[in-house]
Amino acid sequence: MLTKFIKNAVVRKIPTEINGKPIIPFKGVGKYKPTGRKFAPKISTCADYPLDGNKQVPNLKEALIKSGIKDGMTISTHHHFRNGDLIAVEVFKIASDLGIKNLMWFPSASFPCHEPIIEYLKDGTIHHIEGSMNGPLGRFASLGKMKGTGVLRSHGGRYQAVQDGEVQIDIAVIAAPTADPFGNANGVEGPSACGLLGFALADSQYADKVIVVTDNLIEFPCIPWQIHGNYVDYVVKMEQIGIPEKIVSGTTEITKSPDRLLIAELTAKFCEQAGLIKNGFSFQAGAGGTALSIGVFFAEIMRRKGIKARFARGGSNKYLVEMLDEGLVDYILDGQTFDLEGVHSMRENPNHIDTSPFTSYNYHGKGNFAGIVDIVILGATEVDLNFNANVVTHSDGYLLHGIGGWQNCLFSKNVILPVPLFRDRIPVIKDEVTTICGPGELIDIIVTERGIAINPLRKDLINKMKDSKLPIKTIQELKDEAERICGKPKAAEFEDKIIAAIKWVDGTVIDVVRQVKE
Amino acid sequence: MLTKFIKNAVVRKIPTEINGKPIIPFKGVGKYKPTGRKFAPKISTCADYPLDGNKQVPNLKEALIKSGIKDGMTISTHHHFRNGDLIAVEVFKIASDLGIKNLMWFPSASFPCHEPIIEYLKDGTIHHIEGSMNGPLGRFASLGKMKGTGVLRSHGGRYQAVQDGEVQIDIAVIAAPTADPFGNANGVEGPSACGLLGFALADSQYADKVIVVTDNLIEFPCIPWQIHGNYVDYVVKMEQIGIPEKIVSGTTEITKSPDRLLIAELTAKFCEQAGLIKNGFSFQAGAGGTALSIGVFFAEIMRRKGIKARFARGGSNKYLVEMLDEGLVDYILDGQTFDLEGVHSMRENPNHIDTSPFTSYNYHGKGNFAGIVDIVILGATEVDLNFNANVVTHSDGYLLHGIGGWQNCLFSKNVILPVPLFRDRIPVIKDEVTTICGPGELIDIIVTERGIAINPLRKDLINKMKDSKLPIKTIQELKDEAERICGKPKAAEFEDKIIAAIKWVDGTVIDVVRQVKE
Repeated sequence: MLTKFIKNAVVRKIPTEINGKPIIPFKGVGKYKPTGRKFAPKISTCADYPLDGNKQVPNLKEALIKSGIKDGMTISTHHHFRNGDLIAVEVFKIASDLGIKNLMWFPSASFPCHEPIIEYLKDGTIHHIEGSMNGPLGRFASLGKMKGTGVLRSHGGRYQAVQDGEVQIDIAVIAAPTADPFGNANGVEGPSACGLLGFALADSQYADKVIVVTDNLIEFPCIPWQIHGNYVDYVVKMEQIGIPEKIVSGTTEITKSPDRLLIAELTAKFCEQAGLIKNGFSFQAGAGGTALSIGVFFAEIMRRKGIKARFARGGSNKYLVEMLDEGLVDYILDGQTFDLEGVHSMRENPNHIDTSPFTSYNYHGKGNFAGIVDIVILGATEVDLNFNANVVTHSDGYLLHGIGGWQNCLFSKNVILPVPLFRDRIPVIKDEVTTICGPGELIDIIVTERGIAINPLRKDLINKMKDSKLPIKTIQELKDEAERICGKPKAAEFEDKIIAAIKWVDGTVIDVVRQVKE
Repeated sequence: MLTKFIKNAVVRKIPTEINGKPIIPFKGVGKYKPTGRKFAPKISTCADYPLDGNKQVPNLKEALIKSGIKDGMTISTHHHFRNGDLIAVEVFKIASDLGIKNLMWFPSASFPCHEPIIEYLKDGTIHHIEGSMNGPLGRFASLGKMKGTGVLRSHGGRYQAVQDGEVQIDIAVIAAPTADPFGNANGVEGPSACGLLGFALADSQYADKVIVVTDNLIEFPCIPWQIHGNYVDYVVKMEQIGIPEKIVSGTTEITKSPDRLLIAELTAKFCEQAGLIKNGFSFQAGAGGTALSIGVFFAEIMRRKGIKARFARGGSNKYLVEMLDEGLVDYILDGQTFDLEGVHSMRENPNHIDTSPFTSYNYHGKGNFAGIVDIVILGATEVDLNFNANVVTHSDGYLLHGIGGWQNCLFSKNVILPVPLFRDRIPVIKDEVTTICGPGELIDIIVTERGIAINPLRKDLINKMKDSKLPIKTIQELKDEAERICGKPKAAEFEDKIIAAIKWVDGTVIDVVRQVKE
């Protein structure tokens, strides 16, 4: 059968079907209006559950069997432990042992620790993955080795897809550092405390069967109940569900690179001069070394000006926690947790507020928090002359990163991408990005170590900065400068085969990723 | 058209239709198994909401108009302010002014303060009420004056009905003591703080349009967000939304009546002798004078035995708060709030845990909390020889009370009804109750000032108490004793017209209430 292709609103050629299901092409920001109704889970009845609230079963295998695991099902797990997750691989090991085939794995994200999953992709247990494929799984997919096509969604897009019934989860397995026999669960208490469990919210609400696995089973009630036991079918106690030290994956220390430090400083100066850092403002920065440094610069500016932020969006980490403790921010609105200082503070300080992809990011809600945030600091692997940006593929074409909350955050008031002008002598600013993850109209400022480009759509910012001594340049100037230094990079080469689709926040397809030509 | 009747599992003659819609007759406890799917609200999109998160509109009238208020709609309000609510009457005053007709009012409960609603029932603005009709509205309905038929549900039954789509709310108006412009809202902060907003949870999740009205609008984020702004369409700031002092409605002091005090003491002694009060136990008592006294007796027993309760279910009130502060209970699981000491403590003490009709009571969930509670103390207007009980009508036939959480609590491990043997010389124990609200199989112990009857189904308790010096009697003996003193009461007389249906926790109809013969 010949695949049909169409061009979407960012002029990317995409197939009309992915994994045999029709797709909706990206139509432009805010242009696609859903008309249907949310997914309607089956009505349960207490008559089918133990009256005393004890839903324990002896082990994960039994819970999966009781949940009716069978060929072709969709099974979800979550990345609250980031690179310390011990459950996802275990689930598919059991499924493989049971001879189950063609499962769809629907993780909220995958990490290098999930490399053993490749075995279950090879043996047919898993048909394909919908979710980020950081590292080894991405490389495997990029080489065209996954049976089906991967689908990448933002955190908010994952909630949207579940809420809207695009993805129907048959069995959700939620690893919880503390739980009670009823299934109430949290991530802040217990020996494996990892922070919060917000990425499993959609799964708990909409999955047909929900299994909570914990290594710290306590007496009812498990407080706080980040996951409501009223959504849970089975509870399993295990020896160990995760390695909390490994939630510290990637950089969680401020950068020591002089270039990165310069980028961070330029970003902070830009924000101050543009009047974005004012009393009661809000910001979100990620966990990378540059982003953390920007937070430290923000703190200095706030101290100097004698102001404070109303809230910071986390990934809590030690730098953000220090700002909270110092009174520089009223609240941290936590989305996930990037280090153990973050976990500890979440447990002790009531000014940490749990958020979820529903509250923060779901585009198919009655608003979300993203648009309320004043400054958001994001990364990118590539940016193009139209400010379109890429976060999932490298310039060599390999799919090595997930989208995370990146797309969702683009709706914030001021979106800043602090990026090096080149990495390994490959310029970051291109004529065209390898993969469009976010349309340029939502990206306001590119900060590099050699200059700052403001999106021409942001006339207000251009005007504010017209007398600035900061190195304000056009994005063309930045690109030219990089190419003067590094030369014009060679474009990556691809086979025809589509190995992954990139969804926009509204469930439409903004781009696809093709198999890398080796 | 001739109404058809059938007999349900408790042999009550009920019509096959209520308000023109077919009903399901009560089939026995746990016998009705729902087969459908939950109600699926329309998918929203952020594209239709202000990007900066500010959903404020100038006033309630405009919010109702923007919500598309029109004839025949279902409009919900909530009883978090109990007898101090100022919003429900205002909503229907606006609707009446706009000439809207035949609305269905779907309150989580109504109180005497809602007497002005009678005007809107008379002028055709409201067709009928589905929800408790405490006091004046009940009397109005009992006299056959309401156009449609009332439908009474328990708190859990209300959640179930909304979740399952039996009741589809067009517009929910949530009065919130504190809110932000995005619609995040809570009941613990602000000048009108009334406790929590759990009764509006179903409405926020499932209503087509959701309006939050507040007299304390604060900057985002409103913490805690008991109601998620992501479900909210419009936010309205008003002068005053409620009178928090009036959440103190009904008795909130321990009883001074010697008979009631004796009942309370017998109840506590029974629980102790039956071995129900042990370390880590749990209990729920209401806000009446007798129930509060039982709590005080429980506290004494716990102090004496050197034990503590794992949790108490609230209605928080000053007595329960004292027990929490003293360390006699680990947690209070709050459902509503019965006095301002309760509100204060909820704000200050993190061991208050918000619950909702979803977590505590919804029978169409994957379990709920009711079955986990060891001892529950409930009231009743009448009990019959089969332990069936009535909480909505008096022996004169008038519908004067709502069901509240009463039916839901019947699933607890030990259900105790401490009731006087007679009220105003009318025996409480009858051959047959006027209205069956709860089937006798779920009611374990009747405690009166002249004796305690144990349900014959509870052989374990009968056995445990066989050597007790407490006045254990049969329910027949209690009834005979009451009739020896008061004489056999005359049965209430009714017209044929059905003025209200009583739903069981699973949405089936357990009984109906007829118009009182004047």
